[in-house]
Amino acid sequence: MAEAEELLLLDLLPSPFAARVRIALAEKGLNYESREEDLSNKSSLLLKMNPVHKQIPVLIHNGRPICESMVIVQYIDEVWNHKSPLLPSDPYRRAHARFWADYIDKKIYPIGRMLWASKGEVKEASKKDLIECFKILEGELGDKPYLGGESFGYIDLALIPFYSFFYTFETLGNFSVVVEFPKLIDWAQRCLLKESVSKSLCDQRNVYEAVLEIRKKLGAE
Amino acid sequence: MAEAEELLLLDLLPSPFAARVRIALAEKGLNYESREEDLSNKSSLLLKMNPVHKQIPVLIHNGRPICESMVIVQYIDEVWNHKSPLLPSDPYRRAHARFWADYIDKKIYPIGRMLWASKGEVKEASKKDLIECFKILEGELGDKPYLGGESFGYIDLALIPFYSFFYTFETLGNFSVVVEFPKLIDWAQRCLLKESVSKSLCDQRNVYEAVLEIRKKLGAE
Repeated sequence: MAEAEELLLLDLLPSPFAARVRIALAEKGLNYESREEDLSNKSSLLLKMNPVHKQIPVLIHNGRPICESMVIVQYIDEVWNHKSPLLPSDPYRRAHARFWADYIDKKIYPIGRMLWASKGEVKEASKKDLIECFKILEGELGDKPYLGGESFGYIDLALIPFYSFFYTFETLGNFSVVVEFPKLIDWAQRCLLKESVSKSLCDQRNVYEAVLEIRKKLGAE
Repeated sequence: MAEAEELLLLDLLPSPFAARVRIALAEKGLNYESREEDLSNKSSLLLKMNPVHKQIPVLIHNGRPICESMVIVQYIDEVWNHKSPLLPSDPYRRAHARFWADYIDKKIYPIGRMLWASKGEVKEASKKDLIECFKILEGELGDKPYLGGESFGYIDLALIPFYSFFYTFETLGNFSVVVEFPKLIDWAQRCLLKESVSKSLCDQRNVYEAVLEIRKKLGAE
């Protein structure tokens, strides 16, 4: 990376979407400034850089914003393509990786959020749906070390930030990921051996505390 | 394309997602077999080829399935990269294109569906949201001929299939896209001059008839 390059991340520690970008930047060995956003009082920079969604993460590269976590990850992978490729080079394997990252976005976050932000029947239905998703993901993992195959890649990066929510899912959903999905836990532990991952993730208990605060506000206790 | 290549599309004429794939295949000048699916009685081939979502479109290339419309479009663009590039080559412009295609997926389809599948206050709220999305998209279009810039590309391909729903939106939402969004209509007409687009889209009245049938079943009349 040339000296003149400037990378600023509009960040939020507990966000799994921001964690994806932190992992991608770490995988590529890039130095960047992280600026923690207060979502209850969004900075004028965030509103200017992401006027459409007004959400983190936003990566600002030499003054130009890139928004939406997996769009940012692909951008990072394309610009800094000399090291730690995240997407495979073969088009079919790329499509496979994009399919599963899309699955994670469409299922794990919204269903997981439904579980931790609701109560009663809705919570029970979400728990059932989330367990079904974990089954599908464990099936896709099979006996491979990583979701992408032999090495850590795009799908792993898309999913691993949700590991920070496992304690929340287990506690509020009253089930054990370790007991029900041992392969998924082995996979997560394997990912966590990478410093790019372990240093980018928010602690499970801190996520749980943050979730409890939101549940209070939502009246979902 | 080598003689041995086989392309089979599990298709559905009124689906805007299938239309994206039809446009991409036409842009690349590829011959393929289209097999119309009956969603009330899904084929065993569809269930086998897309066991996760069980949805069309699925492109089967030499026996291997690719699922999810924009994943398929990127696959087509990467495999047949000799002609009519859909994504730009510059990483920043690629990120920009992916951002807007993602916006269309997250907003236009779910909000548009909410409009046509509901009634009363929900319908009114969806209409307001959809008009806001069209404003944002018209703002993004500005004075450019296409959403991607000077030539038809990835964002245009993501959005234009929803042109088939304009009559439905207008009739059920009681507003005029032509009056409120003249630039968007000019853009759509420009896209329709391309045979790859005009031959891939479902007629607006046919979509409306199909929607009325669904509304009946949903009790949203």
